[in-house]
Formats: sequence, C-alpha cells, structure tokens
Amino acid sequence: MALQPLAVALGDPAGIGPEIVARAWTARALHALPPFFAIGDLRAIRAVWDGPVEVLSAPADAAAAFGRALPLVQVDDPGEIVPGDPNLAGARCALDSLEIAVGLARAGTAGGVVTGPVSKAQLYAIGFSHPGQTEFIAERCGIAPSNAVMMLAGPSLRTVPVTIHVPLADVPAQLTTELIVARARVVARSLQRDFGIAEPRLAVAGLNPHAGESGMLGREEIDIIAPAVELLRAEGMKITGPLSADTMFHATARAQFDVALCMYHDQALIPLKTVHFDDGVNVTLGLPIVRTSPDHGTAFGIAGTGQAQPDAMIAAIRMAGDCAARRSMT
Amino acid sequence: MALQPLAVALGDPAGIGPEIVARAWTARALHALPPFFAIGDLRAIRAVWDGPVEVLSAPADAAAAFGRALPLVQVDDPGEIVPGDPNLAGARCALDSLEIAVGLARAGTAGGVVTGPVSKAQLYAIGFSHPGQTEFIAERCGIAPSNAVMMLAGPSLRTVPVTIHVPLADVPAQLTTELIVARARVVARSLQRDFGIAEPRLAVAGLNPHAGESGMLGREEIDIIAPAVELLRAEGMKITGPLSADTMFHATARAQFDVALCMYHDQALIPLKTVHFDDGVNVTLGLPIVRTSPDHGTAFGIAGTGQAQPDAMIAAIRMAGDCAARRSMT
Repeated sequence: MALQPLAVALGDPAGIGPEIVARAWTARALHALPPFFAIGDLRAIRAVWDGPVEVLSAPADAAAAFGRALPLVQVDDPGEIVPGDPNLAGARCALDSLEIAVGLARAGTAGGVVTGPVSKAQLYAIGFSHPGQTEFIAERCGIAPSNAVMMLAGPSLRTVPVTIHVPLADVPAQLTTELIVARARVVARSLQRDFGIAEPRLAVAGLNPHAGESGMLGREEIDIIAPAVELLRAEGMKITGPLSADTMFHATARAQFDVALCMYHDQALIPLKTVHFDDGVNVTLGLPIVRTSPDHGTAFGIAGTGQAQPDAMIAAIRMAGDCAARRSMT
Repeated sequence: MALQPLAVALGDPAGIGPEIVARAWTARALHALPPFFAIGDLRAIRAVWDGPVEVLSAPADAAAAFGRALPLVQVDDPGEIVPGDPNLAGARCALDSLEIAVGLARAGTAGGVVTGPVSKAQLYAIGFSHPGQTEFIAERCGIAPSNAVMMLAGPSLRTVPVTIHVPLADVPAQLTTELIVARARVVARSLQRDFGIAEPRLAVAGLNPHAGESGMLGREEIDIIAPAVELLRAEGMKITGPLSADTMFHATARAQFDVALCMYHDQALIPLKTVHFDDGVNVTLGLPIVRTSPDHGTAFGIAGTGQAQPDAMIAAIRMAGDCAARRSMT
C-alpha cells in the first residue's frame, strides 16, 4: 500500500504552528520529508509566509500538489488572525483542524497525524474538556486515554512518563505495578511496530534519590517498581531497573537502552529537553493511527517574528512518516 | 596571604580515589592545578600507580614537594588494600583521612579540602552516623548541617537541591518558604565570595509539572515557592521563578542564570549529570573552609583497572583552588 500523505494540523493560528509548518515544507527536499498537507486557515499562513499554498478541494489531491506548493485543507474561516494574539475563534479553528486530521487518518486518507501546538487555556475557554490533544485523539480513536502513551523522542534519547500531568505530591499514590506494566507493554509493542526495533531495551527509573538506596530513601522501588520489572522480564522483555534516575541520561548511559520509563513528568521531560530542546518529538503510542507533534508550545511571544525554529516540526513530520511507512509494510 | 596547598583525602582506599588523585597530579601542569597533597595510605596508591610519591613528615612540606612527586600525608596503616574489594579497615582509613583534611584546613595549613569518594555502606558499618561526608564536615566546622548547602557544578551548569536525601513522597512536606530563602541566601553569598560573581542570577524551579500550571497541577508554586522568590527579590537578589523545570536546562536556558535552585534531589542531579557526568563537581557552600569533591562514587567495579576518568577530580581540585584563592584575596 502506498504511503498516504500526512495530515498536519496547524494548531493555534496565532501561534508559531503556521510558520513552522510552512518552513518545514520549504525544507522538504533537504530533510527528505514525506508528502504532507496542512489543515487550518490560509490567512494564518499568509500572515507569516508568502510562499506557494495550494488550497485543496479534496485531501486526495495533496500528494500531487506537494511538489509545487504547501497543500492546505481549509477549515471554516476563523476570522482575523493576528500572530501572537490568540482568540477564541482561533481556538475553534485549531480544534476543527485537529478533528479533521484525526478523521482523515482514521479513514485512511491521511497516513498519520502531526499536530501543531495549541493553547490549552484557549481550548478550555471554548469548552474543550480533555487534558490535552492526546486524550482527545485517543477518544476519537475509541481508545481509553490510559492506553494512549506519551513518548518523547529525540535523536539520542526516548523517554516515557508513567504518570504525567499530576501534582508531584500525588505521584507516589498513583504509581502501581499494574500501571508500569501496562505502559511498558504498550511502549515495547510500539517500538517494535512503529520504530522497527525488534527487541526493544527498556530502562526503568526509580522514583526516589539513588533509586531508594535499598529502601533507605523510600520503598516504592522495592514494593512497586522492581516487581513490575521482574514480571516484564519474565515475559521475555529486555528490561533493566529500577535505576538511579540521575545517572541514566548522560551520553554513555542512554546509549544502553532504547527507551527510559520514567515515574513522573519532569523525570522524563528534564533529560529529554535538556539534550533535545530544539528537536524533541512527542509521539502517542498505542493508537490505531500514527500521531506525532513537536515537543514545544505555541510560543505566542515570538509568533510572526521569524524566530521560531522549525526543527522539531520537521522531526515530527519525518518521524510520523517513518512510523507510517513501517505500519504500511506490515 | 599565599595560597596554602589543598588537602585531598583519597576516600575509600579500595575505590578509584587513589588512582584519580595520582592521575590528577600527573596532569597538574596540563590543567594548571594548584599545589595539593594527598591524605591516605601509600599502599593504596602503590596498588594502582607507580609514579613518584613523597611521604611528608609535615604537611607544610607539601608545596616544596609538589613539583617532583605526589605529596602524601600517611594515615594509620589500614592493612592490606585490594582495589575493588572494600573492607572496614579501609573505611577507617577513609574517615581518618577526611578528619585530618578538615583539621588541616580549619587550622589554615591546607587552603581547602577535596574529598575522594567513600562508601557510605562501609562507613555506616564502622559506626559513622552522618548522612554523608558533607554533614560530617559541617559538624567539624561547627556549622549546623542545614546551613551547609550542596551545589553541583559543571562548566555550563550549577544546581542546588533544596531538599536532598529524602524519599520523593516526603519532598512536598519538607518544602517551606523559609528553607528556600535560607538556601538561596547561602548560595548567593557563596557565589559572590567563592566564585567571584558580583550579582549572582538565581533561577528557581517549580515543584510540579509546568511549575503547577497556575495551580491546576499543584499549589506549592503559589503557596511556597513564589513567596520565597518575591521575598528574596525584595532584598535585591537577582532571582527568577518558579520556572517549569523541564525547560530550564537546555544550553540557551541555562546560560540565563548562574545557579538553579531545585526542589528535590533528582531535579538538580538529572540535568547536571546528563550534561556533566564526567566533570561535575560537588561543592559545599556555607562552610568556613573550602570543600569540593568529584560528583561520582567509589566505582569499586572498575577500581584498579585503569578505566577511571580523573576529569571530575581534576575539576574538583581546580575549583577548590579557585575558591580558596578568592577567599585569600578578601
């Protein structure tokens, strides 16, 4: 089956999404990007870029247009767009773009979905009730949000937070052996299917300083994490841990595993963004569709000024294309 | 006042301490290291190095010997030393070395103290009752352990954990505005006095994901951290925060501050060791003496095999020398 073009939702039209997608298109040959089309509003692009855009009458025309112009699926007119100055109409435009992108991928018209940055505050203001785009996509795919797993991926490191957007004080109570096992299984399967890693090596971080120092600095490693690691190893998984989180992420250490399973948000995000701030990709594992996004926000403060770096968007598009290609071969 | 030689305690004689100190001496000219002398056991050095050693009859002779040999203050004979195979006599030797080093620095015979890695398990087995060397040194200096502040320093990043060796579940309860303020004051004064930074820029991390996202993901930023930052700013300190911890540590971000105040162990140690695993230095701030150490352990597994990297020990010696020189000028 030929790889369908990717659907790239522009995100908030007042954020940096439109310009980084346009600049990714400009750099398509340099980075050998797979064909993609944007979903969003033409004026949001025109406000920040004067290159060629081809508004599609049907998404199926995207592949033919991709060589000569940025193909665009226009959503309902969001009204005036001012880069850096978000409004509710723009939030509706972002949500519509996301909805259309997921629908096209579900239908097989798009090979996968790449989502530009949105403003959660703006989305909440128009009644959006999901914690983020990921949970929305999971629901539209008929997947329980808890089975959609967020992985952050850069060229030298992949990390997965087992707990995500919860206060730090609530992390210990949310950690269970079952949760770690469930996350690890989704991660291992996805690395095989989407990333072509036949026997993924998982490294599991401890929760406490020095991974609890044999129980002296906390018992979660002994009571919760080690049993999960043992259970998974008994299933044949290549898995190590619980490891001291502070010594897992330097260049030599991170070369020893394909993905680090981390116990909380910052344990996963601090090392990833420390080394891959400009080219980190957020991948959602466990979905029936491929979905990636650049691991940064709307950056309203620099939208329209030409300072936004497209590196992460380029990496997200390339990774989505690679994953979609692997799925289409199986 | 001329700078006195530094006292370098070798740490556990079966660890990598003796060999990295010997190799630091070998590289003294290359790295422009200040004069130093080792404190420990001659046999521990002889087991791993065949270069020149000069056993001192008095520490005051160290400066004269430094150019031609590694000067050594011999402690009581610890018995047989086998690299990689620690024993209790070795732990006593390590503790004696530390005690002598601190005493010489307190007396002004040494310009500062650099401590090699010790095994806490071995020290506990001989009745050592402090959480670590730092607390022992603080006590010997007549300083409350809570006033001795651990800073990790590499060439591009300095971090200070506000809470240290406590289970993650206990961190939120231990965080107080007063604790953050006290740590920040010690850090700012030390960066001025020991590091020559006239107006240190402090960046304070949040505790929760996205620094609490305006209270949606935890209230410690609003209730505890922000009030500390405001109080310190009102005193004239250059201080920002609470910041999202995950976006504080990439190269561009960390160039904006001189030190990051972190809320817990791994928040400080993960970024530091991710980028400066081989050359991170542990500095104790707030003491009447200068004290540094390489930010790694005894590495019993590679002791005596020639694989140990002396970079962090070299960095620790140089940093101690720089700090001592600044103190001697004031």
